[in-house]
Parts: sequence; C-alpha cells; structure tokens
Amino acid sequence: MNDITFLPLKEGEEPLYSQLYNQLAGQIRRGSLFPGTRMPGKRSLAQRLGLSVNTVDTAYQMLVAEGYLESRPRSGFFVQQVEQLLEVPRQQAAPAPAPPPRPRFDCSTGSVDTDLFPFRTWGRIQRDLLYQSPQLLHHGPRQGDENLRQAVLEYLEAYRGVKCTLPQLVIGAGVEYLLGLVGGLLKGKTAAIENPGYSRPGIILENNGVSCRAVEIDGSGLRVDLLEKSGADLCYITPSHHFPTGVTMPAGRRSQLLRWAMARPGRYILEDDYDAEFRFQLRPLPSLQGMGGPGGPVIYLFTFSKTLAPSIRIAGMVLPLSLVEEYEKMYGAYSNTVSRFEQQTLAQFIQRGHFTRHLARMRSLYKARLGHLVTELEKAFGPGRLVLRGQHTGLHLLVTLPGGPSEEELVARAGAAGIRLSGLSQYYLTGRENCPPSTVVLGYASLGDEDIPALAAALKEAWLGQPSSS
Amino acid sequence: MNDITFLPLKEGEEPLYSQLYNQLAGQIRRGSLFPGTRMPGKRSLAQRLGLSVNTVDTAYQMLVAEGYLESRPRSGFFVQQVEQLLEVPRQQAAPAPAPPPRPRFDCSTGSVDTDLFPFRTWGRIQRDLLYQSPQLLHHGPRQGDENLRQAVLEYLEAYRGVKCTLPQLVIGAGVEYLLGLVGGLLKGKTAAIENPGYSRPGIILENNGVSCRAVEIDGSGLRVDLLEKSGADLCYITPSHHFPTGVTMPAGRRSQLLRWAMARPGRYILEDDYDAEFRFQLRPLPSLQGMGGPGGPVIYLFTFSKTLAPSIRIAGMVLPLSLVEEYEKMYGAYSNTVSRFEQQTLAQFIQRGHFTRHLARMRSLYKARLGHLVTELEKAFGPGRLVLRGQHTGLHLLVTLPGGPSEEELVARAGAAGIRLSGLSQYYLTGRENCPPSTVVLGYASLGDEDIPALAAALKEAWLGQPSSS
Repeated sequence: MNDITFLPLKEGEEPLYSQLYNQLAGQIRRGSLFPGTRMPGKRSLAQRLGLSVNTVDTAYQMLVAEGYLESRPRSGFFVQQVEQLLEVPRQQAAPAPAPPPRPRFDCSTGSVDTDLFPFRTWGRIQRDLLYQSPQLLHHGPRQGDENLRQAVLEYLEAYRGVKCTLPQLVIGAGVEYLLGLVGGLLKGKTAAIENPGYSRPGIILENNGVSCRAVEIDGSGLRVDLLEKSGADLCYITPSHHFPTGVTMPAGRRSQLLRWAMARPGRYILEDDYDAEFRFQLRPLPSLQGMGGPGGPVIYLFTFSKTLAPSIRIAGMVLPLSLVEEYEKMYGAYSNTVSRFEQQTLAQFIQRGHFTRHLARMRSLYKARLGHLVTELEKAFGPGRLVLRGQHTGLHLLVTLPGGPSEEELVARAGAAGIRLSGLSQYYLTGRENCPPSTVVLGYASLGDEDIPALAAALKEAWLGQPSSS
Repeated sequence: MNDITFLPLKEGEEPLYSQLYNQLAGQIRRGSLFPGTRMPGKRSLAQRLGLSVNTVDTAYQMLVAEGYLESRPRSGFFVQQVEQLLEVPRQQAAPAPAPPPRPRFDCSTGSVDTDLFPFRTWGRIQRDLLYQSPQLLHHGPRQGDENLRQAVLEYLEAYRGVKCTLPQLVIGAGVEYLLGLVGGLLKGKTAAIENPGYSRPGIILENNGVSCRAVEIDGSGLRVDLLEKSGADLCYITPSHHFPTGVTMPAGRRSQLLRWAMARPGRYILEDDYDAEFRFQLRPLPSLQGMGGPGGPVIYLFTFSKTLAPSIRIAGMVLPLSLVEEYEKMYGAYSNTVSRFEQQTLAQFIQRGHFTRHLARMRSLYKARLGHLVTELEKAFGPGRLVLRGQHTGLHLLVTLPGGPSEEELVARAGAAGIRLSGLSQYYLTGRENCPPSTVVLGYASLGDEDIPALAAALKEAWLGQPSSS
C-alpha cells in the first residue's frame, strides 16, 4: 500500500471523486501501481485523505467500471492488468486568430444594416412557435420543412423567375454548406470560376473534390469561348450581379452558357443569386435557372444572409431534376442543418407577407443610401473626379480614382483613416496585372446615413491629402 | 408587327409585367421574333393588351437590360440577336418520400422526450438576446462564438473529462456536418467502423473520400487485433456507450486503441460521445479523448441533440492539436453553420447553470422511466422470459425473446400493433448471421410514463399472441 502515492486534492472546478479517479487511473496506466495490488479500503482511504467514503466509493466504482480495478467480494479492490500508455507528446496549439478591430467606417462587403432587421415580428413569431409547437423539437424533413420549402418556392417563382418542383429544393445552413454538398455530388469534375470573382466557392469546391480553373469575364460576364477552352464541366457564376464588378449577364450570354451546358451530359451551371434582390433601377432580373427551366442544367443557389442577416444561417439550392435522385442517394440519410424553430419562423415570416414587405423596405432604404453616398462622394471629390461602377445593383460599388495612387496605397490610406475596404485586385484569382488601376470595392450596406458625409470627407482627405471642402 | 403573338395575360400569382416579359423573351429566344424587328410602341401595346403603360414599360426595360431588346432614342425598341436555345427536355422529379405514419408507440432510437425541454428558460434567454443584442446579426467567429466554446469546454472538462484548448474546439450544425469536415480533412485514409454499429458515420465518411471497413466488436468494444488486420488509419467508435449494444469500453481496450493510434503518425480515433450523459448506475465515464490528452490522437464528437433536442442543430468536436493547423488551412474560410442567436442562447443556458440542472433532471426522469419499463416488461412477460441488455446507459435497450419468433417477425408483429422499433441485425454492416436471434432495439426516451404498461401489454400480445395477464 506504500507504493500508492496520493497527491492532495483541490476543492474547485473538478469534483473530488474525479480528481481521485484520475490520480489512480494515471498510476495504473503508467504501471506505478502494479497489477494485483490490493487497494486500501474505502473507509481507511477516505479517512487518510479527509474525504467522504462516498467520494472514494464513486472513484473506485468508476475504476471498476472502466476495468482499472476488480472488486472481489469480501476481500476488496485489486489493480488490473492495463496495457501501459506511451507518454503523449505535448504539442502547441495554433493561436486563435485575433478578430480585427472594429473600424470607424466598415465598407467591407458582406455586412448588412442590422437596424433594418424586423426584430419585433421575427421575435413574436419565434416566441409563439417555441410555446405552441413542441413537435418542432423533433427531427424534420431532411431537405427542410415542407411549408418553408413551399413558401420559398413560391417566392423564388414570383420574384426570381425560378422554375422547379418541391423535390428539387433543399434548405441548408448557408450557401457554403450547400456548395459543399454539390461538390461531393460532382466530385471529380472540373469547374470554371469567374476571374475576377469571389474566391470562396472555389475553395469549397476544391475541398470537395472538384478542381477549379479561373476563367476571365468580360462586360457580359463569363467568357464562353474561354470556358470551352478550359475543359471544365461546371461553371460557377453570379449572373444577376457579378461579384465584385457588378456586371449583369445579358440574355445572349445566358443563352450561350445554357447551350454550352446542354451540349454535353453532365455539364452544370452553378448560379449563385446572392444579392439579386437589391436591384434599384429595375425589377430584379429573372434567374438563369428559370431560363433553363426545371429540367435545365442549372444548380441555383440563394441565401437569406443579405435579406435578413448573415448570422441566421438559412440558404437554399434548387437542383436540376437530373440530380435529384443522385442527391437523394448520396445525402438521403443526412439530417437538415437548420434549426426547425428558425425554419418555421422564416416560413411564417414569408407566408404572412412580412418578407416581401421587408424586402421592399430594405430596397428603398439601400437605394436612398447609395444615392446619398454617390452624391457625397461627388461633392467631396468634385464631379467626375471619381469613376463609380456597379451602382445599379447590390450592396457595394467599384470606386476608381483615375491617375490616383496605387490600389494598395488607396486601401492602406483608407485603413489608416479607419475605413475598411478592399482593393479590386484581391478578387483576381490570376492575372492581377489586368486589374483596372486605383480601384477599390466599397460596401455601403452597414453605413449609417449620418456617417456618409464624414466617410466621403475622410476618404478624400486620405486619398487626396486635402481636407474636404464641404 | 403581326409576327408577334400575344397570349392573354392572367391576373394572379405572377405579376403582369413578368408574364409579358416571359412571353416576349421566349419568342425572341425561340427565334419566332426576328432580330431587327421593331416592337410596338408602349402605349399602343398597352392599349391593345388592356395593360397600363407602366406594365409594358417595365417588361420592355427588363428585356433591354437583359439584351433581348435594344432601345433606340426616338425610334423605339428593336429585337436583338439572341442565340437560339435547344428545347430543354422535360424530366420527371423523383417523388418526395412520404413521411412514415406516427406510430402508437414510438420506440425508435434517436427521439427524445420533448416535454422535458426547458421552454420557459430557453424562450426567455432567446427573447432577451433578440432585443438586446443586434450585433448577433453579424457573422461570428468561424469555429463558434467564443463564450459558447468556453462554456462548452468547461462543461466537457468537468463532466466528460475532455482535455483541450479553445482552438481545438469547433461548434457546428450537427455531428453529421462536423464528421463531413473531418472526412475532408482525412481524405484518402481508411476508417474502421464498429460492426454492429451505427451506419450513418460510414456513409458520411465515404461521401467525403474516406473508405470504410466494418470491424467486429466484442464484449469490450472494437477488436484491436482485427483493427490492425483491417489496415485502417482511422476508427470510428462509441466507447462510452456502444450503439446499439450498450457496451462500455473498459480501460484496457481504451489503452490498446490509443497505443494503436499512436504507433503510427496519421492514425486517429473518432470518438462519438453521443449520449454518455445518460448513465444511470454511475457517474458518466470520462471520455477516451481525455485519456489521450490534448495532444492525443482522438477526434472527439459530441451533440446537444439528446440533451436538448434533435431539431436544435448544435454539436461540436474537439480536434487533436496535430490537426488544428490543417483544419484552419482547409476550412479557415468557412462561416459557422449555427445561428448565433441559438449559439448565444445555449451559451447563457450553460453559463447560468441551467444546462447541468436540466441534465440532472432528465437523467433522473429517464432513469425512473427505464426502471418502470423494465418492471412492466417483466410483469407482462413474466420474470426471466425476456433478456434485457444495455439498461445502465443511454436511451434504448436490447430486448431478446429467447426461443421466440425471428427478429423480422418480432419487428413486423410490433409494427402491426403500432409499435415502431428496429431489429438488432439491421445494425450489422456485414455478417448478419452472427447477430443474436430474436433481438430488437427498444428506444424508450419519448414514451409517456402512462404509455409504458400499455406498451408492455401490446408487445406481449403481439409477440406471444396472448393478451397480457396484467
């Protein structure tokens, strides 16, 4: 019994029984407590360590249950043979990346104005559901709750010209998640992605076994001639509003793309309709998916991140009929990834007409804000001094300062002035030398209207080195 | 102008402007409207179709924006050259799988008693967050909100003996989602999965490029000798409570497994701790992950599906330190998949001590319910007539009727009596002939206490063909 060393136990986070358990299990594993050793009786050990018999008993029972000790009736507890463990080498964890400091003006893309979120309505629906619908605690349909999918389908039909049947529609926790599923479904194929463009889809597709190639865009979007040359079977595009240049793909190019896809079986177009709701001069353009029809070659991706909030992880996709069976075969066993309470909150939010009203409200607010921003920029820099592009759609625009400092310089000076924005060239996957000079991507969605004149002045001072005249 | 046919427009779901747009775009695509054709003026067409000029104008503007029409100042709208489209072949969608009818007694595994859900507390926290924390609408940290991860880490340390640092912990929308990420991380490796066992992890790993092999278990869990023979680099196990047999893996076997993993770099153990909280005779056993330590070879998976509700999609995993960098490299750009409102609701639910109280309450309720079920089964069938196994842990048990009808027969008769349960053999990935005969898996979590005597009687009548004596 003297070969058993007991370290003092500490009152605190870890329960005493588990501290004792860990001590003894450790010694048995390391072999410092030999197989066959008779353990001290519970009472004597409890007394010796100043613990309750109960605590010692619990630790012993755990050791027995795990096979460290054997309990022999009327003779006590004996150490069992347990294979010794190699010492596990300690390693260092990568330090967690520190979050960037909140800037004075956040002009990054991907943020939205959270003041516009319909807190009251959303909260009321949510509360009623929680108390009135306990069945929502059970697993729901794998592709998403029926009524949510019906409501989304009707919205997409009426507002985005999407043509599909319910089995084609899948709800999931974000476009990235759904794109991962698509990648798995199309494993081994090659995808063309827009250059310049949004890099994340390429990363996700590559992670899921789809190899990606950058293909140049022109004033009409992805170039079909280069797409043909690339040998890709898939292409990922943002036709309603190219990210980040703001190009809208005209019907001619859309037709060419559909022809390209339908020329060979197994070719698909991934249409990411990430922010088409925010089109200001005109009604939103119908989706490319709708042009191809339910039997067409388009995988249509959409999200509620921009229209509601990025942190409410609800997105969806419309599969081509030709992939529905394959999808069911591969993912038929997967549970849906969106909380049913939020699925149902959104379903009722749409069904009761709140969503389309909310959209109309956001659209006009963002439109006014964009107008305000453009006016203030021209006021600060003088008419024509800046070239602004992509201001008819979406929540960001391209700002060029002709003959101005380099893009890097513009971004750095803005940053120093507390303005977070990004250079256009960072969206070039290849051929950055073709990037228009002195151009930045300016997101305005999360700017307060009162900030806009100050932002314009700050930008001018940062870029032209003179305080704004206004 | 006579070559333009106009179908009557219908008042209803689809706005008139978009019906008109679709008609014209279709004719232009099909080539029935020739390039160069001058379109009728807005006013005359509006008059002709009984529409407002505004409606026609909107349709025309959309057609111009999409490149179907060109607008020439002071001369009108002209049809553009648009590449013609092949007619898209119509296909049939796979019919949506009909949900199974709600049985009289649901004894399937994977369901929980939703009456135990802490509606009031959860709802109060949720409501306060919605109104007081608009910043939660923005994207959060990719691996999950810091305070939630801290709270979860402390819980896992104190109650599951998990040893890790914050960068090792990832929160995600369900174990299936996280397992998919793990699969991508370990693409190309071979995984051993428990036989009998839970089949879904194998499906998910295969979908993500990990090939799986079934390896037999014995009374201590996965057989390490067969694991060695299998040539696998990974193994997926449920050591705290093997699904579905209920075996708890003793320390000796755990040590052997850790030795196996540490014998070669790149070997990992996937520990799925899916319901270890529900251990009735003893305190829950510490995790295998804790035995290996933060630098060990264990990928630890856990879920809140059983302790809160399956439809609140919050789960987590603890990565080995050796995989943290690799994970960050591969998934560093992915947004988190769990709504931040639910992340924060759970964080406060844990931090304020509600979670551990909730667990204690559930544990004692489930323990009582299990005891009640065992008593009623013995009462109905007579003592010793049934062999019950796995009744010390988890929310299901194995029921064998020695010398009774075949398993298929037992399941079928139960089904006919409105009792949903599954046969043990369905969990055999291979070698079903080794499955103990006449044995079913009986989940009891969602049974109301008042149902239990009726269930026992119904089972007896179904299986022994005599009405219960009780």
